Amino acid sequence: MTDTEGAVPRRRENTRQRLLDAAAQVFAEVGLDAASVEAVCEAAGYTRGAFYSNFESKEQLFLELCARAAAHQIAAVRAKVADLETEGLAGAPGDSLTLVQQVLEASGADRTAVLLMGEIRIRALRDPVVAAAYRSQGAQLRAEVAQIIVDIARAKDLSLRLPAAQASDLFMTAWSTAAEDAVMDGDDQAGITRRIGEALAIVADLVIDHSR
Amino acid sequence: MTDTEGAVPRRRENTRQRLLDAAAQVFAEVGLDAASVEAVCEAAGYTRGAFYSNFESKEQLFLELCARAAAHQIAAVRAKVADLETEGLAGAPGDSLTLVQQVLEASGADRTAVLLMGEIRIRALRDPVVAAAYRSQGAQLRAEVAQIIVDIARAKDLSLRLPAAQASDLFMTAWSTAAEDAVMDGDDQAGITRRIGEALAIVADLVIDHSR
Repeated sequence: MTDTEGAVPRRRENTRQRLLDAAAQVFAEVGLDAASVEAVCEAAGYTRGAFYSNFESKEQLFLELCARAAAHQIAAVRAKVADLETEGLAGAPGDSLTLVQQVLEASGADRTAVLLMGEIRIRALRDPVVAAAYRSQGAQLRAEVAQIIVDIARAKDLSLRLPAAQASDLFMTAWSTAAEDAVMDGDDQAGITRRIGEALAIVADLVIDHSR
Repeated sequence: MTDTEGAVPRRRENTRQRLLDAAAQVFAEVGLDAASVEAVCEAAGYTRGAFYSNFESKEQLFLELCARAAAHQIAAVRAKVADLETEGLAGAPGDSLTLVQQVLEASGADRTAVLLMGEIRIRALRDPVVAAAYRSQGAQLRAEVAQIIVDIARAKDLSLRLPAAQASDLFMTAWSTAAEDAVMDGDDQAGITRRIGEALAIVADLVIDHSR
Protein backbone atom coordinates (compact mmCIF):
# COMPACT_ATOMS: atom_id res chain seq x y z
CA MET A 1 0.00 0.00 0.00
CA THR A 2 1.33 3.40 -0.95
CA ASP A 3 -1.65 5.32 0.44
CA THR A 4 -0.61 8.67 1.80
CA GLU A 5 -2.45 10.27 4.69
CA GLY A 6 -5.85 11.50 3.60
CA ALA A 7 -6.27 8.89 0.90
CA VAL A 8 -8.84 6.95 2.89
CA PRO A 9 -11.03 9.99 3.65
CA ARG A 10 -10.65 10.97 0.00
CA ARG A 11 -11.69 7.54 -1.16
CA ARG A 12 -14.57 7.62 1.24
CA GLU A 13 -15.66 11.02 -0.04
CA ASN A 14 -15.40 9.69 -3.57
CA THR A 15 -17.70 6.79 -2.68
CA ARG A 16 -20.20 9.20 -1.10
CA GLN A 17 -20.23 11.40 -4.18
CA ARG A 18 -20.70 8.45 -6.53
CA LEU A 19 -23.60 7.20 -4.41
CA LEU A 20 -25.12 10.70 -4.43
CA ASP A 21 -24.71 10.96 -8.21
CA ALA A 22 -26.35 7.58 -8.75
CA ALA A 23 -29.16 8.39 -6.32
CA ALA A 24 -29.83 11.71 -8.06
CA GLN A 25 -30.34 9.81 -11.31
CA VAL A 26 -32.51 7.07 -9.78
CA PHE A 27 -34.63 9.42 -7.63
CA ALA A 28 -35.14 11.74 -10.59
CA GLU A 29 -36.32 8.93 -12.87
CA VAL A 30 -38.59 6.95 -10.57
CA GLY A 31 -39.06 9.02 -7.42
CA LEU A 32 -37.99 8.33 -3.85
CA ASP A 33 -40.76 5.81 -3.07
CA ALA A 34 -40.10 3.57 -6.06
CA ALA A 35 -36.30 3.83 -5.73
CA SER A 36 -34.69 1.02 -3.78
CA VAL A 37 -31.34 1.21 -2.03
CA GLU A 38 -30.38 -1.76 -4.24
CA ALA A 39 -31.10 0.23 -7.41
CA VAL A 40 -28.95 3.12 -6.16
CA CYS A 41 -26.11 0.74 -5.27
CA GLU A 42 -26.31 -1.01 -8.62
CA ALA A 43 -26.23 2.30 -10.49
CA ALA A 44 -23.23 3.42 -8.41
CA GLY A 45 -21.42 0.07 -8.62
CA TYR A 46 -21.29 -0.40 -4.84
CA THR A 47 -22.64 -2.87 -2.31
CA ARG A 48 -25.37 -2.25 0.24
CA GLY A 49 -22.59 -2.31 2.83
CA ALA A 50 -20.92 0.68 1.18
CA PHE A 51 -24.27 2.46 1.09
CA TYR A 52 -25.04 1.97 4.77
CA SER A 53 -21.54 2.85 5.90
CA ASN A 54 -22.12 6.26 4.26
CA PHE A 55 -25.83 6.93 4.76
CA GLU A 56 -28.34 5.97 7.40
CA SER A 57 -31.19 5.57 4.94
CA LYS A 58 -32.31 6.64 1.50
CA GLU A 59 -34.27 9.44 3.18
CA GLN A 60 -31.08 10.79 4.76
CA LEU A 61 -29.27 10.52 1.42
CA PHE A 62 -32.19 12.37 -0.19
CA LEU A 63 -31.78 15.28 2.25
CA GLU A 64 -28.07 15.47 1.43
CA LEU A 65 -28.98 15.45 -2.23
CA CYS A 66 -31.33 18.43 -1.71
CA ALA A 67 -28.50 20.35 -0.04
CA ARG A 68 -26.05 19.42 -2.79
CA ALA A 69 -28.45 20.40 -5.59
CA ALA A 70 -28.99 23.81 -3.97
CA ALA A 71 -25.25 24.27 -3.38
CA HIS A 72 -24.54 23.46 -7.04
CA GLN A 73 -27.09 26.00 -8.23
CA ILE A 74 -25.71 28.72 -5.98
CA ALA A 75 -22.12 27.92 -7.01
CA ALA A 76 -23.05 28.07 -10.71
CA VAL A 77 -24.75 31.43 -10.24
CA ARG A 78 -21.80 32.83 -8.27
CA ALA A 79 -19.28 31.61 -10.84
CA LYS A 80 -21.20 33.30 -13.64
CA VAL A 81 -21.43 36.52 -11.65
CA ALA A 82 -17.68 36.41 -10.98
CA ASP A 83 -17.12 36.07 -14.75
CA LEU A 84 -19.33 39.05 -15.45
CA GLU A 85 -17.64 41.13 -12.75
CA THR A 86 -14.24 40.39 -14.27
CA GLU A 87 -15.51 41.93 -17.50
CA GLY A 88 -16.93 44.80 -15.47
CA LEU A 89 -20.70 44.77 -15.16
CA ALA A 90 -21.22 48.16 -16.77
CA GLY A 91 -19.21 47.15 -19.82
CA ALA A 92 -20.54 43.59 -20.03
CA PRO A 93 -22.35 42.71 -23.23
CA GLY A 94 -26.11 43.03 -22.94
CA ASP A 95 -27.56 46.34 -21.92
CA SER A 96 -30.30 45.29 -19.55
CA LEU A 97 -31.42 42.55 -17.26
CA THR A 98 -30.60 40.07 -20.01
CA LEU A 99 -27.52 39.81 -17.82
CA VAL A 100 -29.71 38.23 -15.16
CA GLN A 101 -30.90 35.87 -17.84
CA GLN A 102 -27.30 34.90 -18.61
CA VAL A 103 -26.64 34.30 -14.93
CA LEU A 104 -29.68 32.10 -14.45
CA GLU A 105 -29.12 30.19 -17.66
CA ALA A 106 -25.74 29.29 -16.23
CA SER A 107 -27.38 27.30 -13.45
CA GLY A 108 -27.82 24.67 -16.18
CA ALA A 109 -31.05 22.73 -16.17
CA ASP A 110 -30.89 19.31 -17.72
CA ARG A 111 -33.72 16.80 -17.64
CA THR A 112 -32.36 14.96 -14.60
CA ALA A 113 -31.90 18.19 -12.62
CA VAL A 114 -35.45 19.29 -13.44
CA LEU A 115 -36.91 15.92 -12.42
CA LEU A 116 -34.88 15.86 -9.23
CA MET A 117 -36.00 19.38 -8.35
CA GLY A 118 -39.61 18.32 -8.95
CA GLU A 119 -39.15 15.30 -6.68
CA ILE A 120 -37.62 17.50 -3.98
CA ARG A 121 -40.54 19.92 -4.23
CA ILE A 122 -43.29 17.30 -3.94
CA ARG A 123 -41.44 15.85 -0.92
CA ALA A 124 -41.17 19.31 0.58
CA LEU A 125 -44.93 19.73 0.16
CA ARG A 126 -45.50 16.56 2.17
CA ASP A 127 -42.69 16.49 4.70
CA PRO A 128 -41.92 19.41 7.05
CA VAL A 129 -38.25 18.36 7.41
CA VAL A 130 -37.70 18.46 3.64
CA ALA A 131 -39.78 21.65 3.46
CA ALA A 132 -37.54 23.43 5.98
CA ALA A 133 -34.40 22.48 4.04
CA TYR A 134 -35.97 23.38 0.68
CA ARG A 135 -37.30 26.72 1.87
CA SER A 136 -34.04 27.73 3.53
CA GLN A 137 -32.00 26.82 0.44
CA GLY A 138 -34.56 28.58 -1.75
CA ALA A 139 -34.27 31.71 0.39
CA GLN A 140 -30.49 31.68 0.01
CA LEU A 141 -30.72 31.34 -3.77
CA ARG A 142 -33.37 34.07 -3.90
CA ALA A 143 -31.12 36.41 -1.90
CA GLU A 144 -28.18 35.73 -4.24
CA VAL A 145 -30.27 36.42 -7.32
CA ALA A 146 -31.75 39.57 -5.73
CA GLN A 147 -28.23 40.84 -5.05
CA ILE A 148 -27.24 40.17 -8.65
CA ILE A 149 -30.27 42.12 -9.82
CA VAL A 150 -29.34 45.05 -7.57
CA ASP A 151 -25.73 45.00 -8.80
CA ILE A 152 -26.69 44.84 -12.46
CA ALA A 153 -29.38 47.50 -12.13
CA ARG A 154 -26.84 49.83 -10.49
CA ALA A 155 -24.08 49.13 -13.03
CA LYS A 156 -26.46 49.60 -15.95
CA ASP A 157 -28.36 52.47 -14.33
CA LEU A 158 -31.68 50.66 -14.62
CA SER A 159 -34.75 51.44 -12.61
CA LEU A 160 -36.87 48.46 -11.52
CA ARG A 161 -40.63 48.39 -11.31
CA LEU A 162 -40.61 46.25 -8.16
CA PRO A 163 -38.25 45.36 -5.31
CA ALA A 164 -35.28 43.18 -6.28
CA ALA A 165 -36.48 40.36 -4.01
CA GLN A 166 -39.81 40.20 -5.84
CA ALA A 167 -38.06 40.40 -9.20
CA SER A 168 -35.85 37.54 -8.06
CA ASP A 169 -38.93 35.45 -7.23
CA LEU A 170 -40.36 36.11 -10.68
CA PHE A 171 -37.13 35.14 -12.43
CA MET A 172 -36.80 31.94 -10.43
CA THR A 173 -40.43 30.96 -10.88
CA ALA A 174 -40.27 31.63 -14.62
CA TRP A 175 -37.06 29.61 -14.78
CA SER A 176 -38.49 26.48 -13.18
CA THR A 177 -41.86 26.62 -14.94
CA ALA A 178 -40.19 26.96 -18.35
CA ALA A 179 -37.77 24.14 -17.55
CA GLU A 180 -40.61 21.84 -16.47
CA ASP A 181 -42.77 22.68 -19.48
CA ALA A 182 -39.85 21.92 -21.80
CA VAL A 183 -39.15 18.57 -20.10
CA MET A 184 -42.84 17.63 -20.33
CA ASP A 185 -42.82 18.44 -24.01
CA GLY A 186 -39.81 16.16 -24.46
CA ASP A 187 -37.50 18.97 -25.58
CA ASP A 188 -33.82 18.19 -25.92
CA GLN A 189 -31.15 20.08 -23.98
CA ALA A 190 -30.98 22.92 -26.51
CA GLY A 191 -34.76 23.24 -26.39
CA ILE A 192 -34.82 23.36 -22.59
CA THR A 193 -32.16 26.09 -22.53
CA ARG A 194 -33.92 28.09 -25.27
CA ARG A 195 -37.27 28.04 -23.49
CA ILE A 196 -35.73 29.04 -20.17
CA GLY A 197 -34.04 31.94 -21.98
CA GLU A 198 -37.32 33.07 -23.56
CA ALA A 199 -39.19 32.96 -20.26
CA LEU A 200 -36.42 34.90 -18.47
CA ALA A 201 -36.34 37.51 -21.25
CA ILE A 202 -40.06 38.18 -20.76
CA VAL A 203 -39.54 38.74 -17.03
CA ALA A 204 -36.42 40.86 -17.61
CA ASP A 205 -38.33 43.15 -19.96
CA LEU A 206 -41.27 43.35 -17.59
CA VAL A 207 -39.41 44.31 -14.44
CA ILE A 208 -37.46 47.19 -16.02
CA ASP A 209 -39.04 50.61 -15.83
CA HIS A 210 -38.72 51.70 -19.46
CA SER A 211 -40.50 55.01 -18.82
CA ARG A 212 -37.46 56.42 -17.06
CA MET B 1 -87.09 -2.35 -5.50
CA THR B 2 -88.45 1.05 -6.36
CA ASP B 3 -85.47 2.02 -8.50
CA THR B 4 -86.54 4.21 -11.35
CA GLU B 5 -84.72 4.14 -14.64
CA GLY B 6 -81.34 5.79 -14.31
CA ALA B 7 -80.92 4.97 -10.65
CA VAL B 8 -78.31 2.30 -11.30
CA PRO B 9 -76.15 4.50 -13.56
CA ARG B 10 -76.57 7.27 -10.98
CA ARG B 11 -75.49 4.99 -8.17
CA ARG B 12 -72.58 3.81 -10.26
CA GLU B 13 -71.57 7.41 -10.97
CA ASN B 14 -71.83 8.14 -7.27
CA THR B 15 -69.48 5.24 -6.47
CA ARG B 16 -67.01 6.48 -9.08
CA GLN B 17 -67.04 9.98 -7.65
CA ARG B 18 -66.53 8.74 -4.10
CA LEU B 19 -63.60 6.61 -5.23
CA LEU B 20 -62.14 9.59 -7.08
CA ASP B 21 -62.57 11.83 -4.00
CA ALA B 22 -60.89 9.28 -1.76
CA ALA B 23 -58.07 8.72 -4.26
CA ALA B 24 -57.47 12.48 -4.55
CA GLN B 25 -56.95 12.60 -0.79
CA VAL B 26 -54.72 9.50 -0.63
CA PHE B 27 -52.64 10.38 -3.71
CA ALA B 28 -52.19 13.93 -2.44
CA GLU B 29 -50.97 12.79 0.97
CA VAL B 30 -48.64 9.92 0.06
CA GLY B 31 -48.19 10.00 -3.72
CA LEU B 32 -49.23 7.50 -6.35
CA ASP B 33 -46.43 5.01 -5.68
CA ALA B 34 -47.06 4.69 -1.97
CA ALA B 35 -50.85 4.67 -2.36
CA SER B 36 -52.39 1.21 -2.53
CA VAL B 37 -55.74 0.39 -4.10
CA GLU B 38 -56.67 -0.96 -0.66
CA ALA B 39 -56.00 2.42 0.98
CA VAL B 40 -58.18 4.17 -1.60
CA CYS B 41 -60.99 1.61 -1.09
CA GLU B 42 -60.78 1.92 2.68
CA ALA B 43 -60.92 5.73 2.51
CA ALA B 44 -63.92 5.52 0.17
CA GLY B 45 -65.67 2.76 2.13
CA TYR B 46 -65.77 0.35 -0.82
CA THR B 47 -64.37 -3.07 -1.65
CA ARG B 48 -61.65 -3.84 -4.17
CA GLY B 49 -64.41 -5.31 -6.31
CA ALA B 50 -66.13 -1.93 -6.51
CA PHE B 51 -62.83 -0.32 -7.39
CA TYR B 52 -62.03 -2.69 -10.24
CA SER B 53 -65.54 -2.60 -11.65
CA ASN B 54 -65.02 1.17 -12.06
CA PHE B 55 -61.33 1.54 -12.86
CA GLU B 56 -58.79 -0.65 -14.59
CA SER B 57 -55.94 0.37 -12.31
CA LYS B 58 -54.85 3.13 -9.97
CA GLU B 59 -52.94 4.63 -12.90
CA GLN B 60 -56.14 4.88 -14.93
CA LEU B 61 -57.95 6.40 -11.95
CA PHE B 62 -55.08 8.88 -11.59
CA LEU B 63 -55.52 10.05 -15.20
CA GLU B 64 -59.24 10.58 -14.59
CA LEU B 65 -58.35 12.52 -11.48
CA CYS B 66 -56.05 14.80 -13.50
CA ALA B 67 -58.88 15.48 -15.94
CA ARG B 68 -61.35 16.10 -13.11
CA ALA B 69 -58.99 18.48 -11.27
CA ALA B 70 -58.50 20.51 -14.45
CA ALA B 71 -62.23 20.53 -15.19
CA HIS B 72 -62.97 21.75 -11.65
CA GLN B 73 -60.46 24.59 -11.99
CA ILE B 74 -61.87 25.67 -15.34
CA ALA B 75 -65.44 25.47 -14.03
CA ALA B 76 -64.54 27.57 -10.97
CA VAL B 77 -62.89 30.20 -13.15
CA ARG B 78 -65.86 30.29 -15.56
CA ALA B 79 -68.38 30.58 -12.73
CA LYS B 80 -66.50 33.52 -11.26
CA VAL B 81 -66.31 35.22 -14.65
CA ALA B 82 -70.05 34.69 -15.14
CA ASP B 83 -70.63 36.38 -11.75
CA LEU B 84 -68.48 39.31 -12.73
CA GLU B 85 -70.18 39.62 -16.12
CA THR B 86 -73.58 39.74 -14.44
CA GLU B 87 -72.35 42.76 -12.51
CA GLY B 88 -70.98 44.16 -15.76
CA LEU B 89 -67.22 44.03 -16.01
CA ALA B 90 -66.77 47.77 -16.45
CA GLY B 91 -68.79 48.47 -13.30
CA ALA B 92 -67.39 45.59 -11.27
CA PRO B 93 -65.59 46.54 -8.08
CA GLY B 94 -61.83 46.75 -8.51
CA ASP B 95 -60.43 49.09 -11.09
CA SER B 96 -57.66 47.00 -12.58
CA LEU B 97 -56.48 43.50 -13.08
CA THR B 98 -57.25 42.81 -9.44
CA LEU B 99 -60.32 41.38 -11.15
CA VAL B 100 -58.09 38.68 -12.60
CA GLN B 101 -56.88 38.13 -9.07
CA GLN B 102 -60.46 37.63 -7.89
CA VAL B 103 -61.09 35.17 -10.69
CA LEU B 104 -58.01 33.11 -9.96
CA GLU B 105 -58.56 33.17 -6.22
CA ALA B 106 -61.91 31.58 -6.95
CA SER B 107 -60.19 28.46 -8.25
CA GLY B 108 -59.74 27.67 -4.55
CA ALA B 109 -56.46 26.12 -3.52
CA ASP B 110 -56.58 24.04 -0.39
CA ARG B 111 -53.71 21.92 0.86
CA THR B 112 -55.03 18.73 -0.75
CA ALA B 113 -55.53 20.41 -4.13
CA VAL B 114 -52.00 21.84 -4.02
CA LEU B 115 -50.48 18.46 -3.11
CA LEU B 116 -52.50 16.69 -5.79
CA MET B 117 -51.43 19.23 -8.39
CA GLY B 118 -47.80 18.71 -7.34
CA GLU B 119 -48.21 14.94 -7.65
CA ILE B 120 -49.76 15.34 -11.10
CA ARG B 121 -46.88 17.56 -12.19
CA ILE B 122 -44.09 15.24 -11.07
CA ARG B 123 -45.89 12.37 -12.83
CA ALA B 124 -46.21 14.51 -15.96
CA LEU B 125 -42.46 15.15 -15.83
CA ARG B 126 -41.82 11.40 -15.86
CA ASP B 127 -44.62 9.96 -17.95
CA PRO B 128 -45.42 11.17 -21.49
CA VAL B 129 -49.06 10.03 -21.22
CA VAL B 130 -49.64 12.10 -18.08
CA ALA B 131 -47.62 14.93 -19.63
CA ALA B 132 -49.87 15.06 -22.71
CA ALA B 133 -53.01 15.24 -20.55
CA TYR B 134 -51.48 17.80 -18.19
CA ARG B 135 -50.19 20.03 -20.97
CA SER B 136 -53.46 19.95 -22.90
CA GLN B 137 -55.51 20.78 -19.80
CA GLY B 138 -53.00 23.48 -18.88
CA ALA B 139 -53.30 24.99 -22.35
CA GLN B 140 -57.10 25.10 -21.99
CA LEU B 141 -56.89 26.83 -18.62
CA ARG B 142 -54.28 29.26 -19.95
CA ALA B 143 -56.56 30.15 -22.88
CA GLU B 144 -59.50 30.76 -20.52
CA VAL B 145 -57.43 33.01 -18.29
CA ALA B 146 -56.01 34.86 -21.30
CA GLN B 147 -59.56 35.51 -22.55
CA ILE B 148 -60.55 36.83 -19.12
CA ILE B 149 -57.56 39.17 -19.17
CA VAL B 150 -58.53 40.43 -22.63
CA ASP B 151 -62.15 40.98 -21.55
CA ILE B 152 -61.21 42.79 -18.36
CA ALA B 153 -58.57 44.93 -20.06
CA ARG B 154 -61.14 45.97 -22.68
CA ALA B 155 -63.89 46.68 -20.14
CA LYS B 156 -61.55 48.65 -17.90
CA ASP B 157 -59.69 50.28 -20.80
CA LEU B 158 -56.34 48.96 -19.61
CA SER B 159 -53.28 48.63 -21.75
CA LEU B 160 -51.09 45.56 -21.11
CA ARG B 161 -47.33 45.48 -21.29
CA LEU B 162 -47.29 42.00 -22.81
CA PRO B 163 -49.61 39.69 -24.76
CA ALA B 164 -52.55 38.29 -22.77
CA ALA B 165 -51.28 34.72 -23.21
CA GLN B 166 -47.96 35.61 -21.58
CA ALA B 167 -49.74 37.53 -18.84
CA SER B 168 -51.90 34.46 -18.27
CA ASP B 169 -48.78 32.31 -17.87
CA LEU B 170 -47.37 34.72 -15.31
CA PHE B 171 -50.59 34.76 -13.29
CA MET B 172 -50.86 30.98 -13.29
CA THR B 173 -47.20 30.45 -12.40
CA ALA B 174 -47.40 33.00 -9.58
CA TRP B 175 -50.58 31.33 -8.37
CA SER B 176 -49.09 27.85 -8.07
CA THR B 177 -45.74 28.97 -6.67
CA ALA B 178 -47.42 31.02 -3.95
CA ALA B 179 -49.79 28.17 -3.12
CA GLU B 180 -46.91 25.71 -2.83
CA ASP B 181 -44.77 28.04 -0.73
CA ALA B 182 -47.69 28.58 1.65
CA VAL B 183 -48.32 24.83 1.99
CA MET B 184 -44.61 24.21 2.65
CA ASP B 185 -44.67 26.86 5.36
CA GLY B 186 -47.64 25.11 6.94
CA ASP B 187 -50.00 28.04 6.41
CA ASP B 188 -53.67 27.49 7.12
CA GLN B 189 -56.37 28.02 4.50
CA ALA B 190 -56.59 31.77 5.14
CA GLY B 191 -52.81 32.04 4.85
CA ILE B 192 -52.75 30.13 1.56
CA THR B 193 -55.45 32.36 0.09
CA ARG B 194 -53.75 35.54 1.33
CA ARG B 195 -50.40 34.62 -0.17
CA ILE B 196 -51.93 33.67 -3.50
CA GLY B 197 -53.68 37.05 -3.49
CA GLU B 198 -50.44 38.91 -2.77
CA ALA B 199 -48.55 37.10 -5.52
CA LEU B 200 -51.33 37.75 -8.04
CA ALA B 201 -51.48 41.43 -7.08
CA ILE B 202 -47.76 41.81 -7.87
CA VAL B 203 -48.28 40.30 -11.31
CA ALA B 204 -51.43 42.36 -11.93
CA ASP B 205 -49.58 45.57 -11.16
CA LEU B 206 -46.62 44.53 -13.29
CA VAL B 207 -48.51 43.62 -16.46
CA ILE B 208 -50.51 46.88 -16.62
CA ASP B 209 -48.98 49.69 -18.63
CA HIS B 210 -49.34 52.55 -16.12
CA SER B 211 -47.61 55.03 -18.45
CA ARG B 212 -50.65 55.22 -20.69
